[in-house]
Amino acid sequence: MSDIVTAGILVIGDEILSGRTKDKNIGFIAEYLTNIGIDLKEVRIVSDDEADIIAALDALRHRYSYVFTTGGIGPTHDDITADSVAKAFGVDIDHHPEVVARFRERWSEQDLNEARLRMARIPDGAELIQSATILAPGFKIGNVIVMAGVPSIMQAMMDIVSPKLKSGVRMLSESVRANAREGDIGSPLRAIAAAHPDTIIGSYPFMDEEQKPNTNLVVRSRDPEKLAAAMGAVKEMLAGLNITR
Amino acid sequence: MSDIVTAGILVIGDEILSGRTKDKNIGFIAEYLTNIGIDLKEVRIVSDDEADIIAALDALRHRYSYVFTTGGIGPTHDDITADSVAKAFGVDIDHHPEVVARFRERWSEQDLNEARLRMARIPDGAELIQSATILAPGFKIGNVIVMAGVPSIMQAMMDIVSPKLKSGVRMLSESVRANAREGDIGSPLRAIAAAHPDTIIGSYPFMDEEQKPNTNLVVRSRDPEKLAAAMGAVKEMLAGLNITR
Repeated sequence: MSDIVTAGILVIGDEILSGRTKDKNIGFIAEYLTNIGIDLKEVRIVSDDEADIIAALDALRHRYSYVFTTGGIGPTHDDITADSVAKAFGVDIDHHPEVVARFRERWSEQDLNEARLRMARIPDGAELIQSATILAPGFKIGNVIVMAGVPSIMQAMMDIVSPKLKSGVRMLSESVRANAREGDIGSPLRAIAAAHPDTIIGSYPFMDEEQKPNTNLVVRSRDPEKLAAAMGAVKEMLAGLNITR
Repeated sequence: MSDIVTAGILVIGDEILSGRTKDKNIGFIAEYLTNIGIDLKEVRIVSDDEADIIAALDALRHRYSYVFTTGGIGPTHDDITADSVAKAFGVDIDHHPEVVARFRERWSEQDLNEARLRMARIPDGAELIQSATILAPGFKIGNVIVMAGVPSIMQAMMDIVSPKLKSGVRMLSESVRANAREGDIGSPLRAIAAAHPDTIIGSYPFMDEEQKPNTNLVVRSRDPEKLAAAMGAVKEMLAGLNITR
Protein backbone atom coordinates (compact mmCIF):
# COMPACT_ATOMS: atom_id res chain seq x y z
CA MET A 1 0.00 0.00 0.00
CA SER A 2 1.53 3.30 -1.06
CA ASP A 3 1.94 6.39 1.07
CA ILE A 4 -1.04 8.18 2.46
CA VAL A 5 -1.23 11.79 1.28
CA THR A 6 -2.80 14.23 3.73
CA ALA A 7 -4.00 17.82 3.62
CA GLY A 8 -5.17 20.74 5.71
CA ILE A 9 -7.31 23.69 4.65
CA LEU A 10 -6.76 27.23 5.92
CA VAL A 11 -9.65 29.62 5.25
CA ILE A 12 -8.65 33.25 5.73
CA GLY A 13 -11.18 36.01 6.24
CA ASP A 14 -12.96 38.17 8.81
CA GLU A 15 -16.14 37.92 6.75
CA ILE A 16 -16.41 34.18 7.41
CA LEU A 17 -15.84 34.60 11.17
CA SER A 18 -18.41 37.40 11.42
CA GLY A 19 -20.96 35.19 9.68
CA ARG A 20 -21.47 37.78 6.95
CA THR A 21 -20.24 35.39 4.28
CA LYS A 22 -21.03 31.69 4.49
CA ASP A 23 -18.07 29.56 3.43
CA LYS A 24 -18.68 27.42 0.37
CA ASN A 25 -15.09 26.35 -0.22
CA ILE A 26 -14.42 23.86 2.58
CA GLY A 27 -17.07 21.38 1.42
CA PHE A 28 -15.96 21.66 -2.20
CA ILE A 29 -12.26 21.13 -1.46
CA ALA A 30 -13.04 18.31 0.98
CA GLU A 31 -14.98 16.39 -1.65
CA TYR A 32 -12.40 17.19 -4.33
CA LEU A 33 -9.53 15.86 -2.21
CA THR A 34 -11.42 12.69 -1.33
CA ASN A 35 -11.97 12.09 -5.04
CA ILE A 36 -8.26 12.38 -5.87
CA GLY A 37 -7.07 10.21 -2.98
CA ILE A 38 -5.90 12.91 -0.57
CA ASP A 39 -7.06 12.69 3.06
CA LEU A 40 -8.26 16.01 4.47
CA LYS A 41 -7.27 15.89 8.15
CA GLU A 42 -7.97 19.36 9.53
CA VAL A 43 -9.48 22.72 8.65
CA ARG A 44 -8.86 26.07 10.29
CA ILE A 45 -10.55 29.42 9.73
CA VAL A 46 -8.66 32.51 10.89
CA SER A 47 -9.11 36.26 10.55
CA ASP A 48 -7.22 38.69 8.31
CA ASP A 49 -4.44 38.90 10.88
CA GLU A 50 -0.84 38.22 9.90
CA ALA A 51 0.22 36.53 13.13
CA ASP A 52 -2.87 34.29 13.14
CA ILE A 53 -2.38 33.33 9.49
CA ILE A 54 1.30 32.49 9.98
CA ALA A 55 0.68 30.46 13.14
CA ALA A 56 -2.07 28.40 11.53
CA LEU A 57 -0.11 27.95 8.31
CA ASP A 58 2.98 26.77 10.14
CA ALA A 59 0.97 24.32 12.24
CA LEU A 60 -0.71 22.83 9.18
CA ARG A 61 2.17 22.81 6.66
CA HIS A 62 4.51 20.92 8.97
CA ARG A 63 1.85 18.36 9.79
CA TYR A 64 0.26 17.51 6.43
CA SER A 65 1.43 16.76 2.88
CA TYR A 66 -0.41 19.81 1.53
CA VAL A 67 -2.13 22.93 2.79
CA PHE A 68 -4.79 24.68 0.72
CA THR A 69 -5.56 28.28 1.62
CA THR A 70 -8.53 30.32 0.39
CA GLY A 71 -9.06 34.06 0.59
CA GLY A 72 -7.04 37.22 1.02
CA ILE A 73 -5.35 37.51 -2.39
CA GLY A 74 -7.31 40.49 -3.77
CA PRO A 75 -6.26 44.13 -4.20
CA THR A 76 -7.39 45.68 -0.90
CA HIS A 77 -5.67 46.38 2.41
CA ASP A 78 -7.29 43.36 4.07
CA ASP A 79 -5.74 41.00 1.51
CA ILE A 80 -2.57 39.93 3.30
CA THR A 81 -2.32 36.23 2.49
CA ALA A 82 0.61 36.42 0.03
CA ASP A 83 2.70 38.55 2.39
CA SER A 84 1.88 36.29 5.34
CA VAL A 85 2.84 33.17 3.38
CA ALA A 86 6.16 34.78 2.34
CA LYS A 87 6.87 35.57 6.00
CA ALA A 88 6.01 32.04 7.10
CA PHE A 89 8.46 30.63 4.53
CA GLY A 90 11.06 33.32 5.27
CA VAL A 91 11.30 34.40 1.62
CA ASP A 92 11.05 37.78 -0.08
CA ILE A 93 7.97 38.89 -1.95
CA ASP A 94 7.78 41.24 -4.91
CA HIS A 95 5.81 41.98 -8.06
CA HIS A 96 6.11 38.93 -10.31
CA PRO A 97 7.24 40.06 -13.80
CA GLU A 98 5.02 37.58 -15.64
CA VAL A 99 1.93 38.65 -13.71
CA VAL A 100 2.72 42.35 -14.17
CA ALA A 101 3.11 41.75 -17.92
CA ARG A 102 -0.33 40.10 -18.02
CA PHE A 103 -1.81 42.99 -16.05
CA ARG A 104 -0.32 45.49 -18.52
CA GLU A 105 -2.07 43.68 -21.35
CA ARG A 106 -5.35 43.88 -19.51
CA TRP A 107 -5.34 47.32 -17.94
CA SER A 108 -4.40 50.82 -19.07
CA GLU A 109 -1.59 52.49 -17.18
CA GLN A 110 -4.15 54.56 -15.26
CA ASP A 111 -6.16 51.50 -14.22
CA LEU A 112 -3.08 49.50 -13.25
CA ASN A 113 -2.86 51.29 -9.91
CA GLU A 114 -1.02 50.37 -6.75
CA ALA A 115 -3.96 48.32 -5.44
CA ARG A 116 -4.17 46.14 -8.56
CA LEU A 117 -0.39 45.75 -8.65
CA ARG A 118 -0.63 44.22 -5.16
CA MET A 119 -2.29 41.22 -6.78
CA ALA A 120 1.00 40.62 -8.63
CA ARG A 121 2.93 40.22 -5.39
CA ILE A 122 4.11 36.61 -5.31
CA PRO A 123 6.59 35.10 -2.82
CA ASP A 124 10.01 34.26 -4.29
CA GLY A 125 10.18 30.72 -5.60
CA ALA A 126 6.43 30.23 -5.86
CA GLU A 127 4.83 28.67 -8.91
CA LEU A 128 1.86 30.59 -10.37
CA ILE A 129 -1.62 29.12 -10.57
CA GLN A 130 -3.28 30.99 -13.40
CA SER A 131 -5.24 30.81 -16.62
CA ALA A 132 -6.69 33.20 -19.16
CA THR A 133 -9.83 33.62 -17.06
CA ILE A 134 -8.16 34.06 -13.68
CA LEU A 135 -7.38 37.67 -12.88
CA ALA A 136 -5.30 37.53 -9.72
CA PRO A 137 -3.21 34.36 -9.80
CA GLY A 138 -2.91 31.87 -7.00
CA PHE A 139 0.41 30.19 -6.33
CA LYS A 140 2.07 27.11 -4.90
CA ILE A 141 5.09 27.43 -2.65
CA GLY A 142 6.53 24.35 -1.02
CA ASN A 143 3.53 22.27 0.04
CA VAL A 144 1.20 25.28 0.34
CA ILE A 145 -1.36 26.08 -2.35
CA VAL A 146 -2.73 29.63 -2.13
CA MET A 147 -6.09 30.18 -3.81
CA ALA A 148 -8.80 32.82 -4.16
CA GLY A 149 -11.77 33.03 -1.79
CA VAL A 150 -14.38 33.51 -4.54
CA PRO A 151 -15.70 29.96 -5.08
CA SER A 152 -15.73 29.94 -8.90
CA ILE A 153 -12.11 31.14 -9.06
CA MET A 154 -10.98 28.79 -6.30
CA GLN A 155 -12.57 25.88 -8.18
CA ALA A 156 -10.74 26.83 -11.40
CA MET A 157 -7.49 26.94 -9.41
CA MET A 158 -8.11 23.46 -7.95
CA ASP A 159 -8.46 22.12 -11.49
CA ILE A 160 -5.16 23.71 -12.50
CA VAL A 161 -3.16 22.59 -9.48
CA SER A 162 -4.57 19.12 -8.84
CA PRO A 163 -2.72 17.28 -11.68
CA LYS A 164 0.55 18.41 -10.07
CA LEU A 165 -0.22 16.90 -6.68
CA LYS A 166 0.85 13.47 -5.57
CA SER A 167 -2.11 11.46 -4.50
CA GLY A 168 -2.40 8.33 -2.46
CA VAL A 169 -4.45 5.19 -2.74
CA ARG A 170 -7.97 6.48 -2.96
CA MET A 171 -10.23 5.99 0.02
CA LEU A 172 -13.16 3.86 -1.10
CA SER A 173 -16.57 4.33 0.36
CA GLU A 174 -19.92 2.53 0.42
CA SER A 175 -23.15 3.57 2.09
CA VAL A 176 -26.22 1.73 3.22
CA ARG A 177 -29.48 3.08 4.58
CA ALA A 178 -30.15 1.38 7.88
CA ASN A 179 -33.90 1.99 8.18
CA ALA A 180 -33.25 2.07 11.90
CA ARG A 181 -32.54 4.71 14.49
CA GLU A 182 -28.90 5.23 15.43
CA GLY A 183 -29.62 4.06 18.96
CA ASP A 184 -31.01 0.75 17.69
CA ILE A 185 -27.79 -0.21 15.96
CA GLY A 186 -25.11 1.49 18.02
CA SER A 187 -24.09 -1.58 20.01
CA PRO A 188 -23.78 -4.12 17.14
CA LEU A 189 -22.15 -1.45 14.97
CA ARG A 190 -19.49 -0.86 17.61
CA ALA A 191 -18.67 -4.58 17.58
CA ILE A 192 -18.40 -4.56 13.77
CA ALA A 193 -16.14 -1.49 13.85
CA ALA A 194 -13.88 -3.20 16.39
CA ALA A 195 -13.72 -6.39 14.28
CA HIS A 196 -12.78 -4.46 11.10
CA PRO A 197 -9.91 -2.21 12.17
CA ASP A 198 -8.75 -1.23 8.66
CA THR A 199 -12.08 0.34 7.88
CA ILE A 200 -13.74 3.49 9.14
CA ILE A 201 -17.43 3.10 9.86
CA GLY A 202 -19.51 6.25 10.16
CA SER A 203 -23.08 6.57 11.37
CA TYR A 204 -25.11 9.58 10.23
CA PRO A 205 -28.64 10.16 11.50
CA PHE A 206 -31.19 11.92 9.32
CA MET A 207 -34.96 12.44 9.13
CA ASP A 208 -36.35 10.32 6.30
CA GLU A 209 -39.21 11.12 3.92
CA GLU A 210 -41.72 9.70 6.44
CA GLN A 211 -40.29 12.05 9.10
CA LYS A 212 -38.88 9.08 10.97
CA PRO A 213 -35.37 9.11 12.44
CA ASN A 214 -33.21 7.06 10.12
CA THR A 215 -29.48 6.43 9.73
CA ASN A 216 -26.99 6.24 6.89
CA LEU A 217 -24.03 3.97 7.52
CA VAL A 218 -20.85 4.61 5.59
CA VAL A 219 -17.93 2.18 5.45
CA ARG A 220 -14.61 3.54 4.19
CA SER A 221 -11.36 1.75 3.48
CA ARG A 222 -8.45 1.87 1.03
CA ASP A 223 -8.67 -1.91 0.68
CA PRO A 224 -11.67 -3.07 -1.40
CA GLU A 225 -11.74 -6.54 0.20
CA LYS A 226 -11.73 -5.17 3.72
CA LEU A 227 -14.42 -2.69 2.76
CA ALA A 228 -16.55 -5.47 1.31
CA ALA A 229 -16.08 -7.64 4.42
CA ALA A 230 -17.09 -4.83 6.78
CA MET A 231 -20.04 -3.79 4.61
CA GLY A 232 -21.13 -7.45 4.51
CA ALA A 233 -21.11 -7.56 8.29
CA VAL A 234 -23.09 -4.30 8.47
CA LYS A 235 -25.74 -5.57 6.06
CA GLU A 236 -26.00 -8.89 7.89
CA MET A 237 -26.49 -7.00 11.15
CA LEU A 238 -29.20 -4.81 9.60
CA ALA A 239 -31.00 -7.84 8.12
CA GLY A 240 -31.13 -9.45 11.55
CA LEU A 241 -32.62 -6.41 13.29
CA ASN A 242 -35.97 -6.94 14.86
CA ILE A 243 -37.25 -3.45 15.48
CA THR A 244 -40.43 -1.50 15.06
CA ARG A 245 -39.81 2.02 13.87
CA MET B 1 -15.24 50.09 26.97
CA SER B 2 -16.06 46.77 28.60
CA ASP B 3 -14.27 43.51 28.05
CA ILE B 4 -14.20 41.89 24.67
CA VAL B 5 -15.62 38.37 24.73
CA THR B 6 -14.12 35.93 22.24
CA ALA B 7 -14.94 32.46 20.99
CA GLY B 8 -13.66 29.53 18.98
CA ILE B 9 -15.67 26.82 17.23
CA LEU B 10 -14.58 23.19 17.08
CA VAL B 11 -16.42 21.08 14.51
CA ILE B 12 -15.91 17.36 15.08
CA GLY B 13 -16.56 14.79 12.39
CA ASP B 14 -15.00 12.63 9.66
CA GLU B 15 -18.06 13.25 7.50
CA ILE B 16 -17.25 16.95 7.21
CA LEU B 17 -13.59 16.30 6.34
CA SER B 18 -14.52 13.70 3.71
CA GLY B 19 -16.89 16.19 2.10
CA ARG B 20 -19.81 13.79 2.48
CA THR B 21 -21.65 16.22 4.76
CA LYS B 22 -21.46 19.95 4.13
CA ASP B 23 -21.19 21.89 7.39
CA LYS B 24 -24.09 24.23 8.07
CA ASN B 25 -23.23 25.05 11.67
CA ILE B 26 -20.20 27.33 11.39
CA GLY B 27 -22.05 30.08 9.50
CA PHE B 28 -25.01 29.89 11.86
CA ILE B 29 -22.94 30.08 15.04
CA ALA B 30 -20.74 32.83 13.56
CA GLU B 31 -23.74 35.03 12.83
CA TYR B 32 -25.35 34.17 16.19
CA LEU B 33 -22.23 35.16 18.14
CA THR B 34 -21.85 38.42 16.22
CA ASN B 35 -25.44 39.26 17.13
CA ILE B 36 -24.88 38.72 20.85
CA GLY B 37 -21.59 40.63 20.99
CA ILE B 38 -19.14 37.72 21.03
CA ASP B 39 -16.19 37.83 18.62
CA LEU B 40 -15.57 34.56 16.81
CA LYS B 41 -11.79 34.39 16.38
CA GLU B 42 -11.06 30.93 15.04
CA VAL B 43 -12.68 27.74 13.78
CA ARG B 44 -11.19 24.27 13.57
CA ILE B 45 -12.58 21.11 12.02
CA VAL B 46 -11.07 17.82 13.19
CA SER B 47 -11.83 14.14 12.69
CA ASP B 48 -13.39 11.69 15.15
CA ASP B 49 -10.01 11.11 16.76
CA GLU B 50 -9.55 11.56 20.50
CA ALA B 51 -6.02 12.99 20.36
CA ASP B 52 -6.97 15.47 17.62
CA ILE B 53 -10.10 16.58 19.48
CA ILE B 54 -8.25 17.10 22.75
CA ALA B 55 -5.37 19.00 21.11
CA ALA B 56 -7.72 21.36 19.26
CA LEU B 57 -9.96 21.82 22.30
CA ASP B 58 -7.02 22.66 24.57
CA ALA B 59 -5.64 25.16 22.05
CA LEU B 60 -8.97 26.93 21.72
CA ARG B 61 -10.24 26.84 25.31
CA HIS B 62 -7.11 28.43 26.72
CA ARG B 63 -7.13 31.16 24.09
CA TYR B 64 -10.76 32.29 23.91
CA SER B 65 -13.56 33.13 26.34
CA TYR B 66 -15.74 30.31 24.98
CA VAL B 67 -15.43 27.26 22.75
CA PHE B 68 -18.47 25.84 20.98
CA THR B 69 -18.20 22.27 19.73
CA THR B 70 -20.56 20.54 17.32
CA GLY B 71 -20.86 16.85 16.54
CA GLY B 72 -19.99 13.52 18.09
CA ILE B 73 -22.55 13.26 20.90
CA GLY B 74 -24.78 10.53 19.44
CA PRO B 75 -25.07 6.85 20.38
CA THR B 76 -22.56 5.22 18.04
CA HIS B 77 -18.90 4.21 18.35
CA ASP B 78 -17.72 7.27 16.38
CA ASP B 79 -19.35 9.63 18.91
CA ILE B 80 -16.45 10.35 21.24
CA THR B 81 -16.81 14.05 21.98
CA ALA B 82 -18.03 13.77 25.59
CA ASP B 83 -15.24 11.36 26.54
CA SER B 84 -12.63 13.53 24.80
CA VAL B 85 -13.85 16.65 26.60
CA ALA B 86 -13.73 14.85 29.96
CA LYS B 87 -10.14 13.81 29.25
CA ALA B 88 -9.16 17.34 28.21
CA PHE B 89 -10.53 18.67 31.51
CA GLY B 90 -9.11 15.76 33.49
CA VAL B 91 -12.49 14.85 35.01
CA ASP B 92 -14.40 11.59 35.25
CA ILE B 93 -17.35 10.82 33.03
CA ASP B 94 -20.35 8.66 33.82
CA HIS B 95 -24.05 8.24 33.13
CA HIS B 96 -25.78 11.37 34.39
CA PRO B 97 -28.70 10.33 36.68
CA GLU B 98 -31.02 13.08 35.44
CA VAL B 99 -30.44 12.15 31.79
CA VAL B 100 -30.88 8.44 32.52
CA ALA B 101 -34.15 9.22 34.30
CA ARG B 102 -35.39 11.11 31.24
CA PHE B 103 -34.34 8.25 28.98
CA ARG B 104 -36.27 5.78 31.15
CA GLU B 105 -39.40 7.86 30.68
CA ARG B 106 -38.90 7.83 26.94
CA TRP B 107 -37.71 4.32 26.19
CA SER B 108 -38.71 0.84 27.29
CA GLU B 109 -36.04 -1.16 29.09
CA GLN B 110 -35.38 -3.11 25.89
CA ASP B 111 -34.89 0.04 23.80
CA LEU B 112 -32.70 1.72 26.38
CA ASN B 113 -29.69 -0.25 25.24
CA GLU B 114 -25.99 0.36 25.83
CA ALA B 115 -25.70 2.55 22.74
CA ARG B 116 -28.51 4.89 23.84
CA LEU B 117 -27.15 4.99 27.38
CA ARG B 118 -23.90 6.34 25.95
CA MET B 119 -25.78 9.56 25.19
CA ALA B 120 -26.25 10.00 28.94
CA ARG B 121 -22.50 10.07 29.56
CA ILE B 122 -21.71 13.57 30.82
CA PRO B 123 -18.37 14.75 32.28
CA ASP B 124 -18.41 15.41 36.03
CA GLY B 125 -19.30 18.99 36.87
CA ALA B 126 -20.89 19.78 33.51
CA GLU B 127 -24.19 21.62 33.25
CA LEU B 128 -26.78 20.01 30.95
CA ILE B 129 -28.12 21.76 27.85
CA GLN B 130 -31.49 20.17 27.27
CA SER B 131 -35.18 20.66 26.65
CA ALA B 132 -38.26 18.52 26.12
CA THR B 133 -37.49 18.27 22.40
CA ILE B 134 -33.79 17.53 22.68
CA LEU B 135 -33.04 13.82 22.90
CA ALA B 136 -29.31 13.63 23.67
CA PRO B 137 -28.39 16.63 25.83
CA GLY B 138 -25.50 18.94 25.20
CA PHE B 139 -23.52 20.32 28.11
CA LYS B 140 -21.36 23.18 29.28
CA ILE B 141 -18.19 22.51 31.23
CA GLY B 142 -15.90 25.39 32.10
CA ASN B 143 -15.85 27.63 29.06
CA VAL B 144 -16.66 24.81 26.63
CA ILE B 145 -20.16 24.34 25.22
CA VAL B 146 -20.74 20.91 23.68
CA MET B 147 -23.57 20.69 21.15
CA ALA B 148 -25.10 18.32 18.62
CA GLY B 149 -24.01 18.21 14.99
CA VAL B 150 -27.54 18.10 13.56
CA PRO B 151 -28.24 21.76 12.72
CA SER B 152 -31.79 21.99 14.11
CA ILE B 153 -30.71 20.52 17.46
CA MET B 154 -27.55 22.63 17.61
CA GLN B 155 -29.65 25.73 17.00
CA ALA B 156 -32.04 24.82 19.82
CA MET B 157 -29.02 24.34 22.10
CA MET B 158 -27.60 27.77 21.18
CA ASP B 159 -30.92 29.33 22.23
CA ILE B 160 -30.77 27.53 25.58
CA VAL B 161 -27.17 28.33 26.39
CA SER B 162 -26.81 31.86 25.02
CA PRO B 163 -28.62 33.70 27.87
CA LYS B 164 -26.02 32.23 30.25
CA LEU B 165 -23.03 33.62 28.37
CA LYS B 166 -21.35 36.88 29.15
CA SER B 167 -21.28 39.07 26.10
CA GLY B 168 -19.25 42.11 25.25
CA VAL B 169 -20.01 45.40 23.62
CA ARG B 170 -21.60 44.43 20.36
CA MET B 171 -19.63 44.93 17.19
CA LEU B 172 -21.59 47.37 15.01
CA SER B 173 -21.51 47.08 11.27
CA GLU B 174 -22.54 49.15 8.24
CA SER B 175 -22.25 48.26 4.58
CA VAL B 176 -22.19 50.27 1.38
CA ARG B 177 -22.21 49.08 -2.20
CA ALA B 178 -19.26 50.66 -3.96
CA ASN B 179 -20.41 50.34 -7.58
CA ALA B 180 -16.72 49.99 -8.36
CA ARG B 181 -14.28 47.16 -8.82
CA GLU B 182 -12.11 46.33 -5.82
CA GLY B 183 -9.02 47.33 -7.74
CA ASP B 184 -10.43 50.82 -8.37
CA ILE B 185 -10.78 51.62 -4.69
CA GLY B 186 -8.03 49.59 -3.06
CA SER B 187 -5.55 52.47 -2.68
CA PRO B 188 -7.89 55.13 -1.20
CA LEU B 189 -9.52 52.45 0.97
CA ARG B 190 -6.15 51.49 2.42
CA ALA B 191 -5.60 55.15 3.39
CA ILE B 192 -9.02 55.32 5.06
CA ALA B 193 -8.37 52.07 6.96
CA ALA B 194 -5.04 53.47 8.20
CA ALA B 195 -6.69 56.73 9.31
CA HIS B 196 -9.44 54.92 11.25
CA PRO B 197 -7.58 52.39 13.41
CA ASP B 198 -10.49 51.53 15.73
CA THR B 199 -12.56 50.27 12.85
CA ILE B 200 -12.27 47.19 10.67
CA ILE B 201 -12.92 47.85 7.01
CA GLY B 202 -13.64 44.86 4.80
CA SER B 203 -13.85 44.76 1.03
CA TYR B 204 -15.89 41.99 -0.60
CA PRO B 205 -16.06 41.59 -4.37
CA PHE B 206 -19.15 40.18 -6.04
CA MET B 207 -20.76 39.97 -9.48
CA ASP B 208 -23.74 42.34 -9.61
CA GLU B 209 -27.06 41.93 -11.42
CA GLU B 210 -25.51 43.40 -14.61
CA GLN B 211 -22.72 40.79 -14.38
CA LYS B 212 -20.20 43.50 -13.61
CA PRO B 213 -17.57 43.13 -10.91
CA ASN B 214 -18.76 45.13 -7.93
CA THR B 215 -17.72 45.48 -4.29
CA ASN B 216 -19.41 45.63 -0.92
CA LEU B 217 -17.56 47.62 1.71
CA VAL B 218 -18.25 46.84 5.36
CA VAL B 219 -17.12 49.02 8.23
CA ARG B 220 -17.18 47.49 11.71
CA SER B 221 -16.49 49.04 15.08
CA ARG B 222 -17.68 48.84 18.68
CA ASP B 223 -17.81 52.65 18.82
CA PRO B 224 -20.74 54.16 16.87
CA GLU B 225 -19.00 57.53 16.38
CA LYS B 226 -15.84 55.97 15.00
CA LEU B 227 -17.92 53.76 12.75
CA ALA B 228 -19.82 56.79 11.44
CA ALA B 229 -16.60 58.72 10.83
CA ALA B 230 -15.01 55.87 8.88
CA MET B 231 -18.18 55.21 6.90
CA GLY B 232 -18.37 58.94 6.12
CA ALA B 233 -14.85 58.82 4.74
CA VAL B 234 -15.67 55.73 2.67
CA LYS B 235 -18.78 57.35 1.17
CA GLU B 236 -16.91 60.56 0.42
CA MET B 237 -14.22 58.54 -1.35
CA LEU B 238 -16.84 56.66 -3.38
CA ALA B 239 -18.64 59.89 -4.35
CA GLY B 240 -15.37 61.33 -5.65
CA LEU B 241 -14.54 58.30 -7.82
CA ASN B 242 -14.26 59.02 -11.50
CA ILE B 243 -14.42 55.60 -13.09
CA THR B 244 -16.13 53.92 -15.97
CA ARG B 245 -17.26 50.44 -15.14
